[in-house]
Amino acid sequence: MPATSAKPDFSAARARIARALDALCDEALPAIGSPVGDAMRYSIRGEGKRLRAVLVMLTYDACGGAGDVAALAAAVEVVHAYSLVHDDLPCMDDDDLRRGRPTVHKAFSVAVATAAGMAMVPLAARAAFEAAERLGLGNAANGEIVRVLLRAAGAGGMIGGQLLDLEGEGRHLSLAQLERVHRCKTGALIEASVEIGARAASAPPAILAALGRYGRCIGLAFQIADDVLDVTATSDELGKTAGKDVAFQKSTYPALLGVQGAIARAEALVEEGCQALASAGVLTPALEATARYIVARRS
Amino acid sequence: MPATSAKPDFSAARARIARALDALCDEALPAIGSPVGDAMRYSIRGEGKRLRAVLVMLTYDACGGAGDVAALAAAVEVVHAYSLVHDDLPCMDDDDLRRGRPTVHKAFSVAVATAAGMAMVPLAARAAFEAAERLGLGNAANGEIVRVLLRAAGAGGMIGGQLLDLEGEGRHLSLAQLERVHRCKTGALIEASVEIGARAASAPPAILAALGRYGRCIGLAFQIADDVLDVTATSDELGKTAGKDVAFQKSTYPALLGVQGAIARAEALVEEGCQALASAGVLTPALEATARYIVARRS
Repeated sequence: MPATSAKPDFSAARARIARALDALCDEALPAIGSPVGDAMRYSIRGEGKRLRAVLVMLTYDACGGAGDVAALAAAVEVVHAYSLVHDDLPCMDDDDLRRGRPTVHKAFSVAVATAAGMAMVPLAARAAFEAAERLGLGNAANGEIVRVLLRAAGAGGMIGGQLLDLEGEGRHLSLAQLERVHRCKTGALIEASVEIGARAASAPPAILAALGRYGRCIGLAFQIADDVLDVTATSDELGKTAGKDVAFQKSTYPALLGVQGAIARAEALVEEGCQALASAGVLTPALEATARYIVARRS
Repeated sequence: MPATSAKPDFSAARARIARALDALCDEALPAIGSPVGDAMRYSIRGEGKRLRAVLVMLTYDACGGAGDVAALAAAVEVVHAYSLVHDDLPCMDDDDLRRGRPTVHKAFSVAVATAAGMAMVPLAARAAFEAAERLGLGNAANGEIVRVLLRAAGAGGMIGGQLLDLEGEGRHLSLAQLERVHRCKTGALIEASVEIGARAASAPPAILAALGRYGRCIGLAFQIADDVLDVTATSDELGKTAGKDVAFQKSTYPALLGVQGAIARAEALVEEGCQALASAGVLTPALEATARYIVARRS
């Protein structure tokens, strides 16, 4: 891997996102009786890479955004947190460990986790709308941002992908079918993060198109890397159970292409995504480093 | 009961709502692979009173709305359908029967029902936004309508109420505690329906306030009537399992006030709500009949 595969330093961005998530919890959740409010806080404040929120911020910067987009980025991160609560449920992937801690339904209960997860989408949508309003974009752009977020969160995006993934267990999927699952399951929200950052900065259509391609490429690369990590990393490194894909007989990129073939595919996608940005003149060092980190990460 | 307690004729409104729900399913769901799309259709197209959607339409009419509000009303109904999928899950009320058919998790699976339920909130929010756009209200009003809907769907509304309800099983709740549960669990969306109809018709603040009071009153009356029906009606009449409150040792209005006391409380709320509308000059015969029907219904 080239030198740029070193982990980029997102600590300043992460600190801003953490503050925005705290503010969102403090503003929106005190009225909610425990334990559902507690479960939402537990999920939202758990440690994480905050990749989606970081992408909102980096894309916003790359497109010349001059305001504080952290609150909008935090709203996107709430949708991601919701998807983790949901995916870990016993009726889904049935996982006990996430981000190095008990999953929400283990720490609380299945009922509380289900309700908390369901409540996080409306919370995120409202938070996104209010954050967009504070950026002064105008109501049409606010509405479009919330729509992009909801589309990613819905049945055509993450939820559809998760179901396609469950249906695929024990079945052999072709590369095209697998790509469809991955593009929905993980790609939809990563692509939305990039689009939301660009829309928040009022990027013109040509830039939006290039960023859309970048988002699709790195979203798919992220899930390929996840598949690779599931077979090459330990549960301790991942903060979640490793080796689950084999246990559940899931079709994965390493199973179809081999580990090296899967890594090569992910790296090619990263190149393609960066090239799209370079051609449109918006390839910042941070967006390039993030794309490379997505493939090179160990957790 | 006075003569106005006879079941009002909502058949024309229901037919329009059914068409709008069909259109919403046809537009939004074909891209979604079964079974999650099938489960959403099964839930959304199930028979129902369509009370929330009817309330959107009647309130819109009462406030002088001149457009076709059926698509917006349908979006509200999707949120209601989602809440039924969610409430029936094994981790929640664990019910096998709803609207005279197997519940969604019985007809499909817990995983599919959970995913379908979660996908219905983003679907409803997007549908509401687009329906409001087609009414030509302007982006600020569109955003406010979606916000009202999401607030009702979230942790401060229906989801919070459902959790408070579960927590209350086997415990004695005071009348004030019970009212809080009911206002969230059922009241939130009924109140939102009334507010959305009024906002769609660009009602002025005084009318919105009166309708807010009407919505709160009939929302609580609806849940009191539900409690009463749970002990006085059969599963066959209800299309869902009767007698569950006693089985789950839930605190209910009949348990606290007796059946007659509970009915009297519900009727007083209906009077209060209608009086608020009369004072503001927006009490239409249809809104009065609906309020009375809410208490007098047998299912």
